[in-house]
Amino acid sequence: MARKIPKEKIKSKEEKIGPKEIAERLKKMSEGIVKEINAEKDPTFTTIQRGKGNVEWDEKKGYLGLGEKTATRNFLNIAHAKKFMQTTIIAAKTHDYLRHNKTASIREIYYELKHTIEGTKENTFEGQDESDPIIVDIEHSVDTIREKLNLHANPKGTLYGDITLKDKMHHNDKFNASKLGRGGWSIMSRVEPEEIELIDADADYCLVVETEAMFERLIEEGYPADNRCLLIGTGGQAARGTRRLVHRVHEELEMPIYVFTDGDPYGWYIYSVIKQGSMALAAHSEFLSVPDAKYIGMTLDDVETYDLKNVTERMKDADIKRAEEMLEYPWFKNEGWQRQLKKALSMKIRIEQQALANKSLDFVATKYLPEKIKKKDFLE
Amino acid sequence: MARKIPKEKIKSKEEKIGPKEIAERLKKMSEGIVKEINAEKDPTFTTIQRGKGNVEWDEKKGYLGLGEKTATRNFLNIAHAKKFMQTTIIAAKTHDYLRHNKTASIREIYYELKHTIEGTKENTFEGQDESDPIIVDIEHSVDTIREKLNLHANPKGTLYGDITLKDKMHHNDKFNASKLGRGGWSIMSRVEPEEIELIDADADYCLVVETEAMFERLIEEGYPADNRCLLIGTGGQAARGTRRLVHRVHEELEMPIYVFTDGDPYGWYIYSVIKQGSMALAAHSEFLSVPDAKYIGMTLDDVETYDLKNVTERMKDADIKRAEEMLEYPWFKNEGWQRQLKKALSMKIRIEQQALANKSLDFVATKYLPEKIKKKDFLE
Repeated sequence: MARKIPKEKIKSKEEKIGPKEIAERLKKMSEGIVKEINAEKDPTFTTIQRGKGNVEWDEKKGYLGLGEKTATRNFLNIAHAKKFMQTTIIAAKTHDYLRHNKTASIREIYYELKHTIEGTKENTFEGQDESDPIIVDIEHSVDTIREKLNLHANPKGTLYGDITLKDKMHHNDKFNASKLGRGGWSIMSRVEPEEIELIDADADYCLVVETEAMFERLIEEGYPADNRCLLIGTGGQAARGTRRLVHRVHEELEMPIYVFTDGDPYGWYIYSVIKQGSMALAAHSEFLSVPDAKYIGMTLDDVETYDLKNVTERMKDADIKRAEEMLEYPWFKNEGWQRQLKKALSMKIRIEQQALANKSLDFVATKYLPEKIKKKDFLE
Repeated sequence: MARKIPKEKIKSKEEKIGPKEIAERLKKMSEGIVKEINAEKDPTFTTIQRGKGNVEWDEKKGYLGLGEKTATRNFLNIAHAKKFMQTTIIAAKTHDYLRHNKTASIREIYYELKHTIEGTKENTFEGQDESDPIIVDIEHSVDTIREKLNLHANPKGTLYGDITLKDKMHHNDKFNASKLGRGGWSIMSRVEPEEIELIDADADYCLVVETEAMFERLIEEGYPADNRCLLIGTGGQAARGTRRLVHRVHEELEMPIYVFTDGDPYGWYIYSVIKQGSMALAAHSEFLSVPDAKYIGMTLDDVETYDLKNVTERMKDADIKRAEEMLEYPWFKNEGWQRQLKKALSMKIRIEQQALANKSLDFVATKYLPEKIKKKDFLE
């Protein structure tokens, strides 16, 4: 039976906040600055400290978050003045976007605002590496995500399966992601609920797949229809838009999320970013993470179970280093992952999803995945 | 008025060749080898030489092609024996795919065939770098493209606009690429006519865009509907599937192709690959190239015309080297490109598509492109 999505399924209060409210917050922030100027005080701008020093593992919520440490920028401090100027022009421009229903990529806003300040030889920005961190400052300062500032990076990722979406910003297009041919739907860089609505879906779970080739394989084998599932291909590390969609599928459709990656530290890290979030975006885990996600494979146990020794590869130094780091992360401290990571470090091999083709092309769809799901053979 | 596509629009004879015919060619090739074995002769396999030494610029056809030089492999030559074995198992496997209506990525076929040969310690392949060139050998040997051997690499590229496609291998799904929301259709890695049919289209030309961000910008501005055009986003250098689709849109719909890239040697090279083909795939220009394609921008003249000096960047050494090479390519020997390349080498600057955002976000859609098209201000 199709799952119709009732409005209240958009759980978090923050999720429901629309462009008007965000524009209001930006206005309030700016009014504070204007007030300070009028009172002949040094204008200030406050954001949250980022970086490892302020990342916290929230065990109860099951995801990474930022701590309480803040950073303040003073206009009259020469070391801060340029960044202060950059902050105000970006805040003003995103306020514009929100009022006029425009969106822009982070590269476009950089170009749109780049100019030489009149009467000086000073440029507003020398490069995008100056505007990107300011965008993050503003996200934190008004306590939102860039998508809600109508900004986005490049899209990546694909959706396939019996789910109907509506693009409210594009003639209310309604389309079902199992009826677009084998290519599926190209996931947009911004998939906010106020624009892209999940109408209904007829599936029991959502399988998130690391490689595009495995995504195509499963479609060719008819796996989603035969197993009543949605497929999301991340094409490597999942982009923000893809993570956001996985999050929404889980929250709004209450669908279990199973993650299927290469059997190596990089793949396992992709899983952990979907599940618990990343250090870099720790502030936004509430919008992006899926603490209930489960890991379906590949594991080093698979190498033995399915006799795949012959199609493994040596781990590279970077893999080994990453595995050693992951062993120490609190969110990898459960028995299953500790065993898996130690096994990787002692065997020093990795195995790709596509190595399953060594059994036969359809093996992954007819045996590997159905057996794992039946036996609930997951890592958590 | 919509352009319905009559079957005879699939012009080239080669285009119409289906899986049966290709399987037949593979069989004939193998029968030749069996014959030699039965006659107690040294079995041989013949393919076409690749690499710069055998690439020819076909001025009449307007694309790059391969010359007549062949390469022969003898099974009884120790230096050839392993490759000979690899060639026969890949040929047999693709023959299998064709008979059973299966497709595979070039990574999958590598994994599917990788094993230790019974009674030896010899692996069929040590890495994919051994199987990939063999696939190319076979393509040339049976005079086709890998897509027709049911093989493909990863997909990349997006299609948007009023064009209706049908996926004959997937419930005959019919969909219009202007009704999938702003994300458009994710172009498959294989878009062969016997599987993906172009049903009809209502547009005057097709604009091929280098960056995904510009692709999204033009959709947000409503450019395709206002200007009656299709959009294809390549996301950098166009993948084979994307080039194949551009080629088919031009051939079957007789639509002019305008290419819009960053104003730098890399972007101009992307244009030339779409138009005249690439050295690496010179053998397949007939299937992939669009000799009639026109270049719409960005150019260094745009920097002056639209006063964009402030948002240019310095060319890197690699850009300079590439521009110097391109100056010598026969297919860049016309006045327009010689002038452009020399200008780049003297000014040593580059300009990105998104730099047009410096005017305003909608500038590209309301001024830049419409003016260029109206004035026919193209490079050829």
